[in-house]
Amino acid sequence: MSAHPDQSVVADEETRVAMAWLSRAVEPGLALMHGFVSAVGPIAAMRSLRSAQAPAPVQALVGARYDEDLVAADLAAAASIGARLVCPGDPEWPADSLHAMSVATAMGVEGIAPPLALWVRGTGDLASLTGRAVAIVGARASTSYGTEQAAQLAFDLAERGWTIVSGGAFGIDAAAHRGALSAAAPTIAVLAGGIDRNYPAAHAALFERIAQDGLLVSEWPPGCAPYRHRFLIRNRLIAALAAGCVVVEASARSGARHTAGRGQELGRPVMAVPGPVTSAMSVGTHALLRDTEARLVTCVAHVIEEIGHLGVDLSPPTRGPDTARDALSSVQARTLEALPTRRPVLPEQLARAAGLSVLEVLSALPALETRGFAECTDGAWRIVRQRSG
Amino acid sequence: MSAHPDQSVVADEETRVAMAWLSRAVEPGLALMHGFVSAVGPIAAMRSLRSAQAPAPVQALVGARYDEDLVAADLAAAASIGARLVCPGDPEWPADSLHAMSVATAMGVEGIAPPLALWVRGTGDLASLTGRAVAIVGARASTSYGTEQAAQLAFDLAERGWTIVSGGAFGIDAAAHRGALSAAAPTIAVLAGGIDRNYPAAHAALFERIAQDGLLVSEWPPGCAPYRHRFLIRNRLIAALAAGCVVVEASARSGARHTAGRGQELGRPVMAVPGPVTSAMSVGTHALLRDTEARLVTCVAHVIEEIGHLGVDLSPPTRGPDTARDALSSVQARTLEALPTRRPVLPEQLARAAGLSVLEVLSALPALETRGFAECTDGAWRIVRQRSG
Repeated sequence: MSAHPDQSVVADEETRVAMAWLSRAVEPGLALMHGFVSAVGPIAAMRSLRSAQAPAPVQALVGARYDEDLVAADLAAAASIGARLVCPGDPEWPADSLHAMSVATAMGVEGIAPPLALWVRGTGDLASLTGRAVAIVGARASTSYGTEQAAQLAFDLAERGWTIVSGGAFGIDAAAHRGALSAAAPTIAVLAGGIDRNYPAAHAALFERIAQDGLLVSEWPPGCAPYRHRFLIRNRLIAALAAGCVVVEASARSGARHTAGRGQELGRPVMAVPGPVTSAMSVGTHALLRDTEARLVTCVAHVIEEIGHLGVDLSPPTRGPDTARDALSSVQARTLEALPTRRPVLPEQLARAAGLSVLEVLSALPALETRGFAECTDGAWRIVRQRSG
Repeated sequence: MSAHPDQSVVADEETRVAMAWLSRAVEPGLALMHGFVSAVGPIAAMRSLRSAQAPAPVQALVGARYDEDLVAADLAAAASIGARLVCPGDPEWPADSLHAMSVATAMGVEGIAPPLALWVRGTGDLASLTGRAVAIVGARASTSYGTEQAAQLAFDLAERGWTIVSGGAFGIDAAAHRGALSAAAPTIAVLAGGIDRNYPAAHAALFERIAQDGLLVSEWPPGCAPYRHRFLIRNRLIAALAAGCVVVEASARSGARHTAGRGQELGRPVMAVPGPVTSAMSVGTHALLRDTEARLVTCVAHVIEEIGHLGVDLSPPTRGPDTARDALSSVQARTLEALPTRRPVLPEQLARAAGLSVLEVLSALPALETRGFAECTDGAWRIVRQRSG
């Protein structure tokens, strides 16, 4: 028996073993392999690949790994750290989030095929945490400005019930995870190597903390090294697991821009936080804002406006408080502007200064007096000095 | 005889007197008055307004000023400071720049009618200086960041032959004028009061300096006070006299945003320089970038890309230098990533680590060796440590 990887039946153990084998044998993201496994099922797919009898282009994707079998060791390693292999059909399989990857693949986007299965560590439920999630990514060599913005944005979103998804790297990623944790909210780190690899090593304690309430997620089995090309493969998953992607700081050549591009291919809103044009770490975010559909965001309200449900949580307009002057009519405002501050003038003089008729000025002055802008002495008018502050 | 204000004949003295009278009697920018003067000519327009016999809606625009005649005094005041009244038809009348105002007015935009005439002080030629001009505007209470950006951008544009147009105010405006002057280039200050008013007073020396090589421009005669509503009327002229408008810093409620809006109504590219989201002085620029078609710019090349002639001066892509790694094929890159740094491995082990066939690895390794990435000892391979720095 073989289960279709996208089918809604809980994976049996034989299927899970096949998925474990495939997750080590195959670099993820390729439509060809995903299509093959979907077509024949994971068990048959594993069998034909292990016997080198899969169609040649598919077999080529496995290369020298075809006769390797570390399934027992990988599953044991996962169990030893309290991790699990989540497969299509499992209750926590994030089918809704991953659907966009199938759509993009069907539309011809390359290297964006859905994961076959996901190695997961932590107490969170992958499907429910990703049901309301936003990605915050950015430069490893972030500035203190970027770090603060990422942490604040993550905190503010987490406080409003959003799960923060990021890549567990130094800089912006770590600040985003920590911002969510500081709101006592779960966060998801999507890794480019085994979930036991603690890469970077300095984040071992952070990953421990993330796993307590949230999740560490990887397409690669325990022990796998975070090769550079795997970060590029991984980025599509960060983009897919979130409703939108915020780039806080990015240099000119940045992985965060790649993640943003993946987000756009998946139809997810991409957002960028601007910064000083003098900062090399804002060159990438400014390029995103110039060259792509990315939306400029400066606060949590802007982010929720992009990713929230329509009509909910719209941000207030960016303007200062209304002043009494704004309530004046055009004639009243022109009269006010023409009023002298010291020596009072007659309405006729005022009309000339304001370019208004005497009648217009005479109609405006009482309203200005009532509102405390103008004062009258013996028929002559002057401005009431505004209280400073 | 009366001259049509938009006709290409040099204004005679009678016309110039009529324009001088109209410039004091009428607040500029209103389509109704511009249409009336265009229809009957400035001399007839003045006569009918002075005798209170113009059509009632037109007459109402003059209000109590209809029986005032300060023409001789205004022309004398202008002459005494070396200023002139430039009228339609004069060689330096900036007809090309102002054309967009007639178009916008014809399309129903309010309060954007062309000036009737312009009071001008300085050695520059208004038509030629505005033939290649860009406006830089922004907050009066600018930060040192904004002041530096405005000055640098103005300097860089001035160095490339662009005239900087601004409003002569504190903050960004002054920084823009000074940046242009520091490049020994002419700059134009468009004022909201008489060109002899030196508003703000602290800029008297700056205005002197601007007049030496550039121009002070105003629609109001000498002596007129810079009432608040006149700044709003003035802003459309800043936008019109430049090919595009750059906002460097702006608070949530800012005159610079008004100028930018006028620029958009005139079909001019509007640009904004981003800043830290923590700065109140960047709230307005970020709002422009979020809510309008304004383009984010960070350097002179970006500005020239927007306002320059197509195909000329395009800015280089924002990316770091290419590295040798970028020239590698996908198979070569994956082989390189899988190479160990210390203990050399056989191609078969490498193929497994890289998820490639042994043949693919064997084809990639010589290229990696040639380029200095990989080294071979007794048939086993490892990475060549990169020189740091």
